Amino acid sequence: MHNIVVLAMSGGLDSTTLCGWYIDHGYKVYPIIFDYGSKHNKYENQAAIKICDFWRLDYKFIKLNFMKDIAKSNLMIGGGDIPEGHYKDANMKMTVVPGRNLIFASILASYAESIKADIIALGVHAGDHFVYPDCRPKFISVLKDVVKASTDGKINVEARFLNITKDQILKEGLSLRHIMVPYFMTRTCYKDQELSCGKCAACAERLEAFKINKKADLINYKNYKGHTS
Amino acid sequence: MHNIVVLAMSGGLDSTTLCGWYIDHGYKVYPIIFDYGSKHNKYENQAAIKICDFWRLDYKFIKLNFMKDIAKSNLMIGGGDIPEGHYKDANMKMTVVPGRNLIFASILASYAESIKADIIALGVHAGDHFVYPDCRPKFISVLKDVVKASTDGKINVEARFLNITKDQILKEGLSLRHIMVPYFMTRTCYKDQELSCGKCAACAERLEAFKINKKADLINYKNYKGHTS
Repeated sequence: MHNIVVLAMSGGLDSTTLCGWYIDHGYKVYPIIFDYGSKHNKYENQAAIKICDFWRLDYKFIKLNFMKDIAKSNLMIGGGDIPEGHYKDANMKMTVVPGRNLIFASILASYAESIKADIIALGVHAGDHFVYPDCRPKFISVLKDVVKASTDGKINVEARFLNITKDQILKEGLSLRHIMVPYFMTRTCYKDQELSCGKCAACAERLEAFKINKKADLINYKNYKGHTS
Repeated sequence: MHNIVVLAMSGGLDSTTLCGWYIDHGYKVYPIIFDYGSKHNKYENQAAIKICDFWRLDYKFIKLNFMKDIAKSNLMIGGGDIPEGHYKDANMKMTVVPGRNLIFASILASYAESIKADIIALGVHAGDHFVYPDCRPKFISVLKDVVKASTDGKINVEARFLNITKDQILKEGLSLRHIMVPYFMTRTCYKDQELSCGKCAACAERLEAFKINKKADLINYKNYKGHTS
């Protein structure tokens, strides 16, 4: 029986839903919150901590100071501007952070092995496939193999949302049976400002997800007037 | 043509030889020196920096502060005692650091992609297979796949010493054509003391390698009297 899960909690909609799903299904969840030096980490990390506290989860906060020195991306502090628009636009490639998910997964696996967990879980989803190589099904498939090999067969990788879109993730989160997912605490925006911009690809996709689910997105936006329901 | 290599330089015999091999064969080498909180990192890191300076390599020094919080091992500061004896002994499992090579490789790959390198190189060898899952051929095979997938096919993983033993690595290093490998600067011992102990599995294997190659090991040992030639 699998009952201990280690996952990366970003404070966004996907990882919060993922975390909620495992709690709802009776797993013991150990989140890691990463600060990898992105522009939105400050606000995202605050959200992640609030959500972990809300669910009384015993989380680890890990600051990856080295990322700013080695990984070039417009998503990082000191990088170029965050593009506006949809994930399908070519300019979104500027937001790729080289090797991010492999680094996250390798740290999750190390922690999982140390606390004798069974699973590491990733919140990657179908909306990420076009832009991010480390969110594609092929990557997840070989990641399973490498984590198995690295841990002598002890740890499985799960990516439950791999083939569904953000609106379907939200639908899953809204229909959990035993717990409530605190979406009003989540943070999705890529920009370095307190209020979510409502214009970057991350915000656009989130707003669309709430619209499709006919639910109000209860966070405040800077450029988006009124809620989505 | 492949000509830029990123590798982890530990300051030990294997990674120093690996680094030397790539320099000797005309590659441009960008080493990363990791401090992951092991007992021997202090002395090992000093050696690595000296060797990089000796070869005038532009290295990155990366401190993985989080490792002590997530990875349990007798090799780490705060962990149990370092066992003495041979790598084939069962008690050497206490020196496994969960996920270490996967974490290193993922960071190497991220850096490699950012600087448009072609290869990440690992110094794992046949002597490590018994104890460390993340040094076995199966691990390296799936690591190649995951690094390819993560970097959209841009980065190859090479592990030139995968199927040879430490004495054969030393033989390769001693027979390079264009450069000298400064073995007198390397550091192999697992213990937290300035002079190498000469008794831990790492020291024992190193001394054996020099003996087989009929060469003097020019570092000073605490418990080992006289050189090996």
